Amino acid sequence: MNMEIATVNSLPYEDFVNIFGNVVEKCPIITAAVWSRRPFVNMGALEAAISEFIDALPESGKEGILRCHPDLAGRDLHSGTLTRESQEEQARAGMDGLDSTEASHMARLNDEYKVRFGFPFVICARMNNKATILQQLSERLRNERALERALGIEEVKKICRLRLQGLVLIDAPNKL
Amino acid sequence: MNMEIATVNSLPYEDFVNIFGNVVEKCPIITAAVWSRRPFVNMGALEAAISEFIDALPESGKEGILRCHPDLAGRDLHSGTLTRESQEEQARAGMDGLDSTEASHMARLNDEYKVRFGFPFVICARMNNKATILQQLSERLRNERALERALGIEEVKKICRLRLQGLVLIDAPNKL
Repeated sequence: MNMEIATVNSLPYEDFVNIFGNVVEKCPIITAAVWSRRPFVNMGALEAAISEFIDALPESGKEGILRCHPDLAGRDLHSGTLTRESQEEQARAGMDGLDSTEASHMARLNDEYKVRFGFPFVICARMNNKATILQQLSERLRNERALERALGIEEVKKICRLRLQGLVLIDAPNKL
Repeated sequence: MNMEIATVNSLPYEDFVNIFGNVVEKCPIITAAVWSRRPFVNMGALEAAISEFIDALPESGKEGILRCHPDLAGRDLHSGTLTRESQEEQARAGMDGLDSTEASHMARLNDEYKVRFGFPFVICARMNNKATILQQLSERLRNERALERALGIEEVKKICRLRLQGLVLIDAPNKL
């Protein structure tokens, strides 16, 4: 059951961090920081506060966010150590159903990407599927590092928006 | 077995974050960010990079770090949901052996502190004991918010230093 924004605004920081701490993967500090910005007029304002916090980080901090993300179809998926959110998102995009050729192709490209950039390939799995993910990964491997860092962060924000939409009502219902 | 700094410097970011990701409690983004700064000449340089990253955060980010910390002798201790590092540190400081009077006193002061400041009381448990923790908590409750945020962050850095000392050799051994 999604929460109304008034309920979100009334949460003590501990509950707020428990509920929203993973809207940016493994970065509860971001959620914990924007609690200082409440009250939020709507979900979009909460999302904007998170985006602004991320944008204000030094480039190393943005790379830090990317490095907190698991590989797509990587060892965390196979060992069952993904966060609940990542597990659902990767499964929906078909990452748990790759055949052996697809899996080794994905693993090779992921490794190339990490060696080239020093952070993992991040893409919003729920807005993609197996084919578009492999295509994007191949194409983005050819980018410059600064562009790739920026594109990765844009994907982080898309993932964040969809996770927030699963938790907060987009519009407050009319009062009867 | 503590690592030599050369070994630390050779780690891919995934191993680096797995090993050092919790030197600042629940903030792997910080460790993941400073990986960009390697090679480190010694453990002190790694520690300094972490401190600099923290100092460069906006005040909301520093509050975010504090809010990722559990209460001392709080519900995470009792429910067994502390991180391994916090569990050991709180146990060493006697936080798991409070009698019922001490426990309710601590809980009341923790709650007062959180209501007053909007973040939890953070202190380096390994450099304190039951008596000094209760005394510090009582005294620091009377501080201004900005001072208390700064004092909390200084404690975060002490905790970080001790956690690093448990993982990295302080001085490289002489080569024979």
